[in-house]
Amino acid sequence: MQYEVEQKFPVDDLAGVEAGLRARGAEIGPPVVEVDRYFNHPARDFSETDEAVRIRRKGEKHFITYKGPKVDQTTKTRREIELPLGGEPLGGAEGTVEAWSELLGALGFRVVAEVRKTRRRAEVVHEGRTAEATLDQVDDLGDFVELELVAEQDGLDAARACLASLAESLGLKRSERRSYLELLMARRM
Amino acid sequence: MQYEVEQKFPVDDLAGVEAGLRARGAEIGPPVVEVDRYFNHPARDFSETDEAVRIRRKGEKHFITYKGPKVDQTTKTRREIELPLGGEPLGGAEGTVEAWSELLGALGFRVVAEVRKTRRRAEVVHEGRTAEATLDQVDDLGDFVELELVAEQDGLDAARACLASLAESLGLKRSERRSYLELLMARRM
Repeated sequence: MQYEVEQKFPVDDLAGVEAGLRARGAEIGPPVVEVDRYFNHPARDFSETDEAVRIRRKGEKHFITYKGPKVDQTTKTRREIELPLGGEPLGGAEGTVEAWSELLGALGFRVVAEVRKTRRRAEVVHEGRTAEATLDQVDDLGDFVELELVAEQDGLDAARACLASLAESLGLKRSERRSYLELLMARRM
Repeated sequence: MQYEVEQKFPVDDLAGVEAGLRARGAEIGPPVVEVDRYFNHPARDFSETDEAVRIRRKGEKHFITYKGPKVDQTTKTRREIELPLGGEPLGGAEGTVEAWSELLGALGFRVVAEVRKTRRRAEVVHEGRTAEATLDQVDDLGDFVELELVAEQDGLDAARACLASLAESLGLKRSERRSYLELLMARRM
């Protein structure tokens, strides 16, 4: 079984991190707009039931996701149903998100939050391992870089050390454990 | 503005109607399985609010439809939002319908009825006009043929007369005004 070791860092100088990645031979992929729009249920308070309904746009692709309550606090296991949405019924980049918001709105679902970001991906080799770097410009939250390595269970410590070393070499500090949605909700408090 | 003039007939001898259509030079298209699965809302009784949520399969294509209450009793105008669903996430002909039923079920929507039919389409020329004929084999309801003509307002009477003459020549009698859903619900009473 493989594990993902990942850390996310807020950054003030995204161009500087990009330059650092390129200096290590990384190619940075094209920007993709990602939108996650979260809804509340017409008859249940999802913040109390620990559920979520989300419409996701990833560039040209769209999905709806239902996340059930955690069934097990230790492993954070939840029921998740993610289904692809079709076409661009209203045209335009945001047509599908808007059309689905209209349909969900007619059924009484209300938008509670939206995470909107421009994401670029890169692979970078560090100490002989290939890490994935994700560069995010998040509306209302700023810029972030996420680093990820995949490891077997007995290689987790080595992977964590490699990731820490890569982060340091890129000038990344103060890792952030909260999701973008959590950060956005915390800003509202 | 164009109007659809249509009539639907229950038939005991669908093969006989097919033969009649072919004798008039009609080509009968391939069978397409159509499934309409209707759901009730978790917090509203749609039979009282005059709304509907439906997952529709038309062969390989899938849609979700929301129908709002009639806003005007005379013209039966309703708000309708129909959006295409993507892919075949679970594989198999019924995969999309089942996956969406699971998602809607997790949100508290309950299946109230399902209309399942095999539909073939044909065009037939009668008295110089081209009518559309639809041959339906409906699960639990039997076989039906629907005839349709498109006409301008000042040609509605002529179109109705043409349709009646075509129906008679095909041996179709006792037209049925109720929808398949209504017929299915009436059977349950």
